Amino acid sequence: MSDVVTVIAPINIAVIKYWGKRDEKLKLPLNDSISGTLDANVMCSKTSVCARPEFKEDRIWLNGAEQSKTILQNCLQKIKDIACDQQSVEKEFLSWNVHICSENNFPTAAGLASSASGYACLVTALAKLYKIKADLSALARIGSGSACRSIYGGFVHWHAGIKPDGSDSFATQVVNTDHWPEMRVLVLVVGDSKKHTSSSIGMKITAKTSALMKYRTEINVPLRVTSMCDAIKQKDFASFAEITMKDSNEFHAVCLSAYPPCVYLNDISHKIINLIHKYNDLFDSPKVAYTFDAGPNACLYLLEKDVPNVVSMIKHVFPSTNPDFIKGLPCNEAKNVEFLNNINFKQENIDLLKYMIYTKIGDGPKVIDNGEHLLNVNGYPLEK
Amino acid sequence: MSDVVTVIAPINIAVIKYWGKRDEKLKLPLNDSISGTLDANVMCSKTSVCARPEFKEDRIWLNGAEQSKTILQNCLQKIKDIACDQQSVEKEFLSWNVHICSENNFPTAAGLASSASGYACLVTALAKLYKIKADLSALARIGSGSACRSIYGGFVHWHAGIKPDGSDSFATQVVNTDHWPEMRVLVLVVGDSKKHTSSSIGMKITAKTSALMKYRTEINVPLRVTSMCDAIKQKDFASFAEITMKDSNEFHAVCLSAYPPCVYLNDISHKIINLIHKYNDLFDSPKVAYTFDAGPNACLYLLEKDVPNVVSMIKHVFPSTNPDFIKGLPCNEAKNVEFLNNINFKQENIDLLKYMIYTKIGDGPKVIDNGEHLLNVNGYPLEK
Repeated sequence: MSDVVTVIAPINIAVIKYWGKRDEKLKLPLNDSISGTLDANVMCSKTSVCARPEFKEDRIWLNGAEQSKTILQNCLQKIKDIACDQQSVEKEFLSWNVHICSENNFPTAAGLASSASGYACLVTALAKLYKIKADLSALARIGSGSACRSIYGGFVHWHAGIKPDGSDSFATQVVNTDHWPEMRVLVLVVGDSKKHTSSSIGMKITAKTSALMKYRTEINVPLRVTSMCDAIKQKDFASFAEITMKDSNEFHAVCLSAYPPCVYLNDISHKIINLIHKYNDLFDSPKVAYTFDAGPNACLYLLEKDVPNVVSMIKHVFPSTNPDFIKGLPCNEAKNVEFLNNINFKQENIDLLKYMIYTKIGDGPKVIDNGEHLLNVNGYPLEK
Repeated sequence: MSDVVTVIAPINIAVIKYWGKRDEKLKLPLNDSISGTLDANVMCSKTSVCARPEFKEDRIWLNGAEQSKTILQNCLQKIKDIACDQQSVEKEFLSWNVHICSENNFPTAAGLASSASGYACLVTALAKLYKIKADLSALARIGSGSACRSIYGGFVHWHAGIKPDGSDSFATQVVNTDHWPEMRVLVLVVGDSKKHTSSSIGMKITAKTSALMKYRTEINVPLRVTSMCDAIKQKDFASFAEITMKDSNEFHAVCLSAYPPCVYLNDISHKIINLIHKYNDLFDSPKVAYTFDAGPNACLYLLEKDVPNVVSMIKHVFPSTNPDFIKGLPCNEAKNVEFLNNINFKQENIDLLKYMIYTKIGDGPKVIDNGEHLLNVNGYPLEK
């Protein structure tokens, strides 16, 4: 049996956004956040790790390119410390260096947070390698804050905590993957060449300069977190959707109130927002919820029954020349789009959207037993 | 001597924004606001009024088209009531109907608030016609909230007041027109075909649905109003500029946090914001302040000495094919734009800006004595 451990881990899309740290080094957030974990069969990070006496140093390769090992040092040391405490492996094994190879199966151009799935993957693989028993969400958080939410499937709640050492800042599952099986996600990838302020810099500027930030983190988000957990548990889509959209808008609002302002939405993002509100206005309660991370791409949460209409509407309003426009799960489209006659919409210019990804709620990280590792028998990345 | 009274009145550009009403009917605001009054020789509304026994009804023409008289009824009645109380004119005169003709000398396409100058003009003309003595700012407010600030020159403070009858909601002058003679304004008119939510509807939605609005109106704006009055009195441009930009951003932030969100800035607006921050970063303190009303056009406040550099920068970054790109006051341009080498800017596509208007701080409404009325001898609009 190989000494290589390989894990796949999912990305997650927040419905209550994380923005701003109470501790930069420990990656402790100013507010609780909640996300849906997306099916790792559609989008995932995959990571292989192994430790051997002949490795001269710790090395890490990401999407084919070697990276500075500093990006893994914090997580690796913490896990080795736990292994040492728990005497889970031989002392000698702890002295060996590790080789790590990681890949995302989705293009970074999709603007999706690969660091969340990446660190969830890394921490799960290392925990397995060193046979430790620990709360992996807190360990993943040390790598990248929102990675802690990718440790569980279903819907996940990251508790900000209040302790200075961060021991009460970890993720818990709100509901498991099977709780709301009808829930679907459409990721709309917007063509955009603009370099945006990175999340970590944007968070710093916003926390330091926005005169609205503290009302969001201290008053509005706590109220929303409670209502969101209820909405998810009760499968109340209308409430879920409204809270999701309001929180996304508020997050971008506080970013805009920073000095200088941090702007992640563009005109195409706003066209999508506008279209979703028009679509929802056709019904008595919202059928689709948009949410935007620190970039212009939209994530739409919706129920399976509404997917054909919504996909057809998007294809109609945002015409595309891309033959591979819909990626991900197999997807039915509506036979007609007559309901669009009731929406005052404008058909947009061609190719404003690059493509979309159709996916659903899924499980947390999974150890791969089929031998499909990313490291070869010598412990180096496979040649492609 | 003609019985026609003609007045010109200036527009104003807020540096602390008015957004949200505490009383819809009386047009009482949720928060204080402060604006600069712009030179009426560059942009103004002009209004002629006269009352005659032979007029069969009150009539009003605006930019050549007759309007419903409902738009003037509130102001007219209030002024007649005061005239009656003050016995300022004969009783019979009060029974005559009025004809009103009003024009703006700037295109409505400029997206500038013509209702402010329009109602300031109307109220000043009617007050003169009926010879009343009254606080014209409170009367103009009844027509259109921000019109109360166009009653004075220089910088003007509209006090929100707290009384339900609105008697403490009026404008006062912070400093007169001559206080800060170096102050200049550049209005950048953005090509934009999108219909935006009207201010009055946007205000309503925001006040009703934004979870951030009350912190802006109750906490942040009051602090800023005090600092802004100080900055203006002390001619402290750096503070003036920073408060102006922060307040504009916060206003648009609360709009974005409404449900559905109210979005007035577009990608071009954000390019301008970005450019101004880059330009200001070249110096130890801000040299230019941007501010945006309920639309994508930028108003830049800056000192006269910085105009040549800023105008040249804008022409360089936003190339235009418009031979009449700079309107308004005569304007010097910088001989070279070498300083741009120190800014990491991107030259934008051609004609993103339609044109710009160069102007300065100016006086309040003025009665025109030269006989250039908009009503002919019969009391009807002049043929053009």
